[in-house]
Amino acid sequence: MNTNLKETVQALEALASSKSSADFLLTWDKTDDELMATALVAKALKELHREGRSLRIFDTGLAIAIFRDKSTRTRFSFSSAANALGLAVADLDEEKSQISHGETVRETANMISFMAEIIGIRDDMYLGQGNSGMREVAAAVQEGFEAGVLHQRPALINLQCDIDHPTQTMADLLALEAHFGSFEALRGKKLAMTWAYSPSYGKPLSVPQGIIGLMTRFGMDVVLAHPEGYDLLPEVISLGEKQAAASGGRFEVTGSMEEAFEGADVVYPKSWAPFHVMQQRTDLLSQGDRRGLDQLEKECLANNARYQDWECTEDLMAKTRDGKALYMHCLPADITDVSCQHGEVAASVFERYRLATYREASFKPFVIASMMMRAKVDDPAATIEKLAAGGSRKLI
Amino acid sequence: MNTNLKETVQALEALASSKSSADFLLTWDKTDDELMATALVAKALKELHREGRSLRIFDTGLAIAIFRDKSTRTRFSFSSAANALGLAVADLDEEKSQISHGETVRETANMISFMAEIIGIRDDMYLGQGNSGMREVAAAVQEGFEAGVLHQRPALINLQCDIDHPTQTMADLLALEAHFGSFEALRGKKLAMTWAYSPSYGKPLSVPQGIIGLMTRFGMDVVLAHPEGYDLLPEVISLGEKQAAASGGRFEVTGSMEEAFEGADVVYPKSWAPFHVMQQRTDLLSQGDRRGLDQLEKECLANNARYQDWECTEDLMAKTRDGKALYMHCLPADITDVSCQHGEVAASVFERYRLATYREASFKPFVIASMMMRAKVDDPAATIEKLAAGGSRKLI
Amino acid sequence: MNTNLKETVQALEALASSKSSADFLLTWDKTDDELMATALVAKALKELHREGRSLRIFDTGLAIAIFRDKSTRTRFSFSSAANALGLAVADLDEEKSQISHGETVRETANMISFMAEIIGIRDDMYLGQGNSGMREVAAAVQEGFEAGVLHQRPALINLQCDIDHPTQTMADLLALEAHFGSFEALRGKKLAMTWAYSPSYGKPLSVPQGIIGLMTRFGMDVVLAHPEGYDLLPEVISLGEKQAAASGGRFEVTGSMEEAFEGADVVYPKSWAPFHVMQQRTDLLSQGDRRGLDQLEKECLANNARYQDWECTEDLMAKTRDGKALYMHCLPADITDVSCQHGEVAASVFERYRLATYREASFKPFVIASMMMRAKVDDPAATIEKLAAGGSRKLI
Repeated sequence: MNTNLKETVQALEALASSKSSADFLLTWDKTDDELMATALVAKALKELHREGRSLRIFDTGLAIAIFRDKSTRTRFSFSSAANALGLAVADLDEEKSQISHGETVRETANMISFMAEIIGIRDDMYLGQGNSGMREVAAAVQEGFEAGVLHQRPALINLQCDIDHPTQTMADLLALEAHFGSFEALRGKKLAMTWAYSPSYGKPLSVPQGIIGLMTRFGMDVVLAHPEGYDLLPEVISLGEKQAAASGGRFEVTGSMEEAFEGADVVYPKSWAPFHVMQQRTDLLSQGDRRGLDQLEKECLANNARYQDWECTEDLMAKTRDGKALYMHCLPADITDVSCQHGEVAASVFERYRLATYREASFKPFVIASMMMRAKVDDPAATIEKLAAGGSRKLI
Repeated sequence: MNTNLKETVQALEALASSKSSADFLLTWDKTDDELMATALVAKALKELHREGRSLRIFDTGLAIAIFRDKSTRTRFSFSSAANALGLAVADLDEEKSQISHGETVRETANMISFMAEIIGIRDDMYLGQGNSGMREVAAAVQEGFEAGVLHQRPALINLQCDIDHPTQTMADLLALEAHFGSFEALRGKKLAMTWAYSPSYGKPLSVPQGIIGLMTRFGMDVVLAHPEGYDLLPEVISLGEKQAAASGGRFEVTGSMEEAFEGADVVYPKSWAPFHVMQQRTDLLSQGDRRGLDQLEKECLANNARYQDWECTEDLMAKTRDGKALYMHCLPADITDVSCQHGEVAASVFERYRLATYREASFKPFVIASMMMRAKVDDPAATIEKLAAGGSRKLI
Repeated sequence: MNTNLKETVQALEALASSKSSADFLLTWDKTDDELMATALVAKALKELHREGRSLRIFDTGLAIAIFRDKSTRTRFSFSSAANALGLAVADLDEEKSQISHGETVRETANMISFMAEIIGIRDDMYLGQGNSGMREVAAAVQEGFEAGVLHQRPALINLQCDIDHPTQTMADLLALEAHFGSFEALRGKKLAMTWAYSPSYGKPLSVPQGIIGLMTRFGMDVVLAHPEGYDLLPEVISLGEKQAAASGGRFEVTGSMEEAFEGADVVYPKSWAPFHVMQQRTDLLSQGDRRGLDQLEKECLANNARYQDWECTEDLMAKTRDGKALYMHCLPADITDVSCQHGEVAASVFERYRLATYREASFKPFVIASMMMRAKVDDPAATIEKLAAGGSRKLI
């Protein structure tokens, strides 16, 4: 093992190994040690992959993907992680299945799980339903496992819900660690999580909420900025305050993008829909009210348009620490003059950080692989040592 | 090997190993020994899987899935079985392919099969076309294999057709064996295969037909019950009579659900469309007669509605042996007050047997894996012994 | 190793091993030795597969499939090749992803490639955009690799573009080699690449262009025949002339199908759209001009109809060398009285060569596997020797 890898494994071995639950549904369900273990395993797997090692721990088995919203990055990250560990992806395409409503969620959960090790779910469209739906699935497979119907209990991974986007924010955390040199170095760094203008509407709240819910635990100085009316879930705001107090960090909400950028070490300007709009949208969607949805979209876009100046420009970037804050984005970004007329970020800013955003994204497959592995092996440090001494991805 | 497994392997070794054909298209194409071998291999594979063993017999190879109707259970069972044996699933999505009609079935069959070990087909919508279409594919790959175009001859597995649903009924058989303790114990047990009311229409006939075609071979007392006009294929009725006579069982048709339930050991209440309706539907579908189909659906649902009292209620269940018959269903069931207003089964009955129906379904992946393995290895008993002595699904 | 295999490996070892680029985008980008190496590796892999050997060289890894047009043969060939080498296929379904236009091609290319060894693309609908789009993807992953974002640089394989169809034509080359006994034997053989009537329109130019671009390098006497107005890309015509001169072959264009068939050793009658029509179609498609497209289709079909006598009939076949030219087609063919009223080929001619066209197609999975392997291993001859001494596809 190289030095990096050795240090990662040692840090991993120093952690309490208590596993509260194999499922990964919200970062704030996890203890500090669990979170850190997930991050360290991801880091180790990335290093092993860079060296050409095989990460395979399964001979056969399925990783089930349930995507209720469009996805490129997360879908391919999930497929990559599953394949790297030796699992085959089976897509639950709800249009091609016999899934109906209500009672059958728990039935379907068992029907697809006879040989499943992992179930990954993206369900971010309906406020109040995404994360709770995942918990329904978890309870159903737990029941099936306890009844002996399932020989193994598949672990659930939240691939983005109405509340959190843990695979994204854990990747962001590792990108920050790589950028600043250590997790310890994040302490006191100012992160501006700000709303930004976009010509589209209805973007989920899960990224800003997840960033607040995660980064306030690492002693960061997190500032949330958004125009009036673009609030997040109130529970997440309280959580941010509580966690910042506990970690020795800070958490603040402001109505000014400038203020948030002032002296920031990291900026994360990104559009989202207001919480109350997502609530109305959830109701209209569940009523199938097409006309109401169109009307809501029109109102929303008109309201968005009042905040076209919430754009990550060169002028704003100049206000950050030494004008050199790290720009982050979960991608795809709405880039002014590139993907739209007015967007979240100026073309020159984005282009300067383009490869940095790719690097940020590059942690996601390894974060997912880590969540899968941590759910399925008892001693990840030992597993990583075996992989480090094992074969390469190329057999011949 | 544990005792269960040892007994299963011994029973397997005692069977005549003659393989008439590697394809599995109808249970009644198979000799008693072939059927029993399929059941025993499935049972052994399930036991090995429960123990965490790897079932892998292929390093690489494709299992091709062709689904001409929606599916969750069978699709995932097929994917699970393929993956467990080491095959990757390749979906033939007819919308994304260049498949046209008529002549090219035999061409397509060869084009997809250069590296295919297995082809699984669900084709249950058109009466007279499903099973015969599978035989066309079988003949085409046979021709390709004999001409040296294909290096291996893929085996076909019927994943539900217009006539039979062998992967379902073989799973049902194994569920019955598990419930009653042995195949021998099925002798003389009364099974009520009855129509039940559903607010939908056009459900295939393959399950009741398949149950009759299979269970009459095991000395069971099979009673088919349905309202006037809901007949099955006449060939299957004759087959049931002939087989029951040969096996020392009984086969009877009645017009009363009560009569069928009276003293039954097993009940299988399930909706299906009348045979003559499926014939009309086939014609209208092939003519693309949208209006005719709507009209037929309307008439059918109106006719169905006359039989809303064909529901598996607590009162009916009380009439079964000691009020404790095993309730079976291929799922999803139409459950009154849960998935619909009036359905096939009362909510309290279904809930009492819910986990039992999951257990019934849990045999399907192993039945399919057994069909795949039996088609591709010469001595399944030896293969199972090797797997029992082999590695676990988790490599590290 | 058997004699065939030994000779193939020896021929392979005799070639210069210089790899200009791992991507396979046009056959005429490749040196003679590179082409020959691709052909020989494909031949060796086919022989190993026939013997039941495993072709696996990867433990894990993804092969990404991007199909912007319908496909059966190429899709399954790609899946087969990937699986045979140990890679899992991940489909980039653009409808289910967040792909937008313009700038994000390079972003998407990196986002899907963190664990990708291969990217296969079919993009044949838009003239001037297919091959150039592939080069954009290639440049993007090169940038990501050089920046350290990607741990490995995925190799691109052209699965059909607006210019060439190298996996098809390389398969055709191997079919010709098998038919005539050696590559050397192709020298001087007359190949008639002719237009043929079809009741559809808009078929890509890539097959006739690819055949000219490839077969003129092997000293063949290539005759292109088409009605007035059905021209190919002018660059390809020049290329054909240049290459024929260099290889000691011939290249000629004629307006008569009869003339092309006269004394031909091989005939390849196939419909395509005129170059200028494809250009108009590209413009109309990119403008989303539905009405214009309908109008163009109408005009085209009317124009096509003037050339219904361009059909590969028994009379025409009788004019070929000894009346026994090899009939080739990339499939599916429009067969008169079978798949349409008037088509590219008479039913009796097609039926006589039907299995030959299957055999032609059977090379494609191995050609793709060869392209993948050549891109990813340094010494394919050594790899083939190891596979020949290695395990079988069936593990138990």
